[in-house]
Amino acid sequence: MRNAVIPKDPAYEARVRESFSRQSHMATLGVAIAFIAPGEVHLTLPFGAQFCQQNGFMHAGAIASVADSANGYAAYTLAAPDTDVLAVEFKINFLAPARGPGFLARGRVLRPGRTLTVCQADVFTTGAAAQTLVATMLSTIIVRPRER
Amino acid sequence: MRNAVIPKDPAYEARVRESFSRQSHMATLGVAIAFIAPGEVHLTLPFGAQFCQQNGFMHAGAIASVADSANGYAAYTLAAPDTDVLAVEFKINFLAPARGPGFLARGRVLRPGRTLTVCQADVFTTGAAAQTLVATMLSTIIVRPRER
Amino acid sequence: MRNAVIPKDPAYEARVRESFSRQSHMATLGVAIAFIAPGEVHLTLPFGAQFCQQNGFMHAGAIASVADSANGYAAYTLAAPDTDVLAVEFKINFLAPARGPGFLARGRVLRPGRTLTVCQADVFTTGAAAQTLVATMLSTIIVRPRER
Amino acid sequence: MRNAVIPKDPAYEARVRESFSRQSHMATLGVAIAFIAPGEVHLTLPFGAQFCQQNGFMHAGAIASVADSANGYAAYTLAAPDTDVLAVEFKINFLAPARGPGFLARGRVLRPGRTLTVCQADVFTTGAAAQTLVATMLSTIIVRPRER
Repeated sequence: MRNAVIPKDPAYEARVRESFSRQSHMATLGVAIAFIAPGEVHLTLPFGAQFCQQNGFMHAGAIASVADSANGYAAYTLAAPDTDVLAVEFKINFLAPARGPGFLARGRVLRPGRTLTVCQADVFTTGAAAQTLVATMLSTIIVRPRER
Repeated sequence: MRNAVIPKDPAYEARVRESFSRQSHMATLGVAIAFIAPGEVHLTLPFGAQFCQQNGFMHAGAIASVADSANGYAAYTLAAPDTDVLAVEFKINFLAPARGPGFLARGRVLRPGRTLTVCQADVFTTGAAAQTLVATMLSTIIVRPRER
Repeated sequence: MRNAVIPKDPAYEARVRESFSRQSHMATLGVAIAFIAPGEVHLTLPFGAQFCQQNGFMHAGAIASVADSANGYAAYTLAAPDTDVLAVEFKINFLAPARGPGFLARGRVLRPGRTLTVCQADVFTTGAAAQTLVATMLSTIIVRPRER
Repeated sequence: MRNAVIPKDPAYEARVRESFSRQSHMATLGVAIAFIAPGEVHLTLPFGAQFCQQNGFMHAGAIASVADSANGYAAYTLAAPDTDVLAVEFKINFLAPARGPGFLARGRVLRPGRTLTVCQADVFTTGAAAQTLVATMLSTIIVRPRER
């Protein structure tokens, strides 16, 4: 479904890590980078009792947060130097309760573009025998010249 | 666009407050209830430097979190006693950078249903002369018998 | 929620009508323009037995078609001369069965932009005493220089 | 990502064909069934000059129509006897202009449920050397007892 993708910026990995380090929301949630490749970024989210909804599952917004960043950074791996990425919009379906010791968000580019990139992130449970697909997110991301 | 709505549970307000108090994610984000009426719930979110993206604006996931809860509780005001609400899915468009001292998420029911309720939340900046529409979210919410 | 909008092209109405006349899908569905104003376009769709789903209601795709064009042309009223508009994506919730003699899709701009415009369309039944909200669509539309 | 799925109704294929034959919108668009399996349905859409947008590409609503039916029938393959399926909502991203001699919509179940089923459809061009992903749709579908 995807063509082979060649990053426009050979330093794409360093750039993703640098931008990620400035997302305080990711640090607050305990999110870490698990994998970076052209067009694909995986992030891990540990269960956090302070980010739950009324039944003790991770809040939909916490799951959406990690999926949004996974998609944004997947898009960012293919962006030109001196650009930034911003979420235009996303849609997320919640497929199973977000319970368990942790989660993995796998963001990948469905269609790279000069201006707009479309990504999809799947969020799975981790640390259990059978991994469950907890949510899937479809995102539209805009690539823009970096503001100085 | 909306018919007059009569809550099935006269104690809808107490029920919303009780459930909200169990959402640790809302407490972590500093979210407070500003308004509760049948079919409508408003929540306030202060700016939090620990919930930001790479440019120092509130992270899309933080904005989505408060919009999701505003919509969920708007649906919950119209739900029968002994039910719970869960987000099936949502879609959010980001219309302006989430900067400023604070935000107001206004969730309202577009179409109440026995099983599924559709809500929309608008998130505005607060505390400035001109309020800016930062995001709008369309949510599908399922009403289910409460798990014991 | 919307600022006063001033069209960049005083001939916006003629331009919408000209583009609409080239959408063969609208002619096939029997769609007509009911209203054009800066940032807002209304389209009418008659019931058509050849555009139905398995229960004899209008197919979700027929309702989506008219809502998509209403949003696209609402965006187009605010676009600069020599540009074209294309749907990047949309999300639609179906709120009631699409039955009745006809439908009105009211598309309006939520946030105009140089590159991206966000619109919402509400689709109502027409011709009955009580009008029913059948669907609501949130669209992201890109404005581009016209291809020659 | 998907568990092995066992249809609740061994006559699922006949049931899909019977319901599809009642969707007049599919006949009007010239859509045909290409493949039926538990949790997956593929539909073909020929290019139709009477279903186009202003530049002569297939209208977004025509592409959405075939994707919506592919997802609905993918869900229907797993539904119990004497039920019907209805689209609650969908979101579709348009990834490339819908030009070419024809299109294939591949709908598949991401998560089956007793009440709600989540599906994704990818729409490709056909008849050319390189197939292009034209659109992807994420749908929420409700399974209900059939109305008599």
